[in-house]
This record gives sequence, structure tokens and C-alpha cells, in this order.
Amino acid sequence: MRYFVITGHKAVADGSFKLDDLAGGAGRMDILARCINSAFVLSHEIRRDAEIYLVMEGGDDAPKTVRINGNSVRYLNPDERSTASLIRNALLKKIPEGHEVQSSPGVYVSKMSFADVIEALSRKGNFVYLKEDGTDVRDFQFPEDPIFVLGDNKDLTEEEEQCLLAKGPAKISVGPISLHADHCMILVQNEMDRREAE
Amino acid sequence: MRYFVITGHKAVADGSFKLDDLAGGAGRMDILARCINSAFVLSHEIRRDAEIYLVMEGGDDAPKTVRINGNSVRYLNPDERSTASLIRNALLKKIPEGHEVQSSPGVYVSKMSFADVIEALSRKGNFVYLKEDGTDVRDFQFPEDPIFVLGDNKDLTEEEEQCLLAKGPAKISVGPISLHADHCMILVQNEMDRREAE
Repeated sequence: MRYFVITGHKAVADGSFKLDDLAGGAGRMDILARCINSAFVLSHEIRRDAEIYLVMEGGDDAPKTVRINGNSVRYLNPDERSTASLIRNALLKKIPEGHEVQSSPGVYVSKMSFADVIEALSRKGNFVYLKEDGTDVRDFQFPEDPIFVLGDNKDLTEEEEQCLLAKGPAKISVGPISLHADHCMILVQNEMDRREAE
Repeated sequence: MRYFVITGHKAVADGSFKLDDLAGGAGRMDILARCINSAFVLSHEIRRDAEIYLVMEGGDDAPKTVRINGNSVRYLNPDERSTASLIRNALLKKIPEGHEVQSSPGVYVSKMSFADVIEALSRKGNFVYLKEDGTDVRDFQFPEDPIFVLGDNKDLTEEEEQCLLAKGPAKISVGPISLHADHCMILVQNEMDRREAE
């Protein structure tokens, strides 16, 4: 499995945003939508071996985490608006304390924080932190079930970084120029595709 | 310069589409918007050395070509909706026959067809056709001023392909799995970034 964890530092967790204003009032929800695209979208199919965790950290109702599983997801299209609509539908769900709720096939929402997600995933795979001073992804020995962790348009907060570093993640970088999270994901996916094809 | 030519086979050339329906009624304008993102968007800046040609081939008013130049473009944001709005503003412009009109800084529109674009660009650089049976991009010697040519979610038509092949393009592929045009562009950009950083 390929896991991705993205922090949406201002992403409006209560779902009270307009699909017409994803980049503004929704707190850069456009970036999270593009990260979903990068996690799953192939020319003619969906990556079934991927799962993404989007941690929504903006607004009164934060934190919440939307999880999308490639193996069971349905109604996922490549465009930002329809993808953000899946996210919003999840965020509008009532979530009983300590539970995760399914909002549509393969899309789940919970009140997990970044620290909760890291703790839960630490039992499932091996952390890989995307960081500009990391090992070049092309020289990297991918662990089994890698869990790639990225910030949205901002780096992880200091507290988040400490939480992740406590798990002893590998650190990788994708190239000489600083890129958006969704672009970094494409480069990581391609490198893994190449290794698997060898 | 890095040139990109993308054919929008159903992209509605008269601009009569809703920003709420980019993937549907607009004829997969969402793909073209993401290609613009891939051409220009970096973490903290815009790629100034890139230029994209989007050939709109859908509807009565087709063909039209929207050209965006990284060196002079303004008001470009990463999200699909605002990017598609720049495209639509261009398509709604009145275009005198044989002319190219600027709709906003760095955004231009003309009545050029795919064949016209290929002919015009043939004086500016060297064609590179993204094709699944091409040379691996990692083994490719990039020519000076490469002009990358891609279809949107459909391959070039037979006629378009003949037009391009007549120019003797190099052919490259980006990996073992078939990807969307905007994802292919990210992989090409990264490879060129790495070569330039060497």
C-alpha cells in the first residue's frame, strides 16, 4: 500500500465552504483536491493500492481527517470541484466521538488530529517525510508500505514535525526545485511505478 | 524555452461554458487548466521559461488557440477554476482574422488550428512527442527549446499525428503506466530541472 498524509493547515473542517471558492474561503481546499488526484488518478483507472489522509486543521470544528481508500472509492473524478464535493460531503457528516464515518464509498471522516493519524498509521507502514534536504527519491530504497507525509502549501508546524520525527521517518526530496505537494506526489508515484515495473 | 502544446479535442472554443462545469459542458477544460498548472506553477513562483499552447477543438467556433507565456503572465493561480476563467476570458475576445489578441497580461488567443500552431512553432524549437512507445525521458537528450506535444484525455487524431510526424519529432515516454497529460508534464519538467541543476 502507498499511504499519503497531507496537512491542510487552513482547510475548513466544518465543511461550510463554497465549491466556487476552494482556493480562498475553503482554506486552500484546491491543494487537497489536487493531492487526491495525484494519489489516485491514472489515465484509464484508479490506483487501488493507495490511501490518502487529509488532515483538516482550519476553523472551529478542527481537527478532522478525511480518509480515501483507492480500493473502495467510487464517484471520484479528476477535477477539483467534484473532488472537493466528496470532501465537503464527508466534513458535513455527524461524527460520533471516537468513530470514523463513511460518507460515500471509500470516503471516511473522523475527528483524528495529525498526531492521531501518525499514531494510527505507525502500525501499518513506514514513514517517509518529504523534505527539501532529504535523500533524492531516485536513490531511495522504498520501505514496505511507505507512508508519505507532506504539508499543503505550508510546511508542517513545529509540533507536527516533532510528532513525525519521533517516529524516525526516512527523508526524501524529489528534485532541485521546490514544488507543490500534488506535484511531489506525482514524482514519488512515478518512481515507485518504475521500481515495481523493473 | 520549454514549449507545451495540448489539444483540447472537445474544449468549447467559443467560451460559452460555466466555470461550475469544467469537466462536463466545457469539454474537459479541467484537464487544460491542470496542464497550465503543470506548465507554470512552482512552490513560490511561476516558471518564466515556459509557454503553453492550448488548442480548443470543440464547438462551432473551433479551432482557437490560447497561448500563455510564463514570462509575462499575471493573475495566474494554481486552482482550476481561476485558471479556467483566464481561458474563458480569452475565448470570449473578438479575434480579427489572422490576428492574435491579448486578453490579460501574458494570455493570448488566436484562431490558429493545431496545424497552424505546429507550423508556427517549427521555427522556434524542436518537437518532442509524448508517446507511450517513446524513449524513456530519463535517457533522453533534450534538444534546445523543446516543444512537447500531448493530447488531453484522448490521443492526437490521426490527422494531427501526421501533421506532427511530418516534422520528425523525437518521441519520449515518462514511465510504465499511462498517465494524464498534466502528470506527464510534471515528470518532464522535473527531468529538465534535474539536467539544468547538474
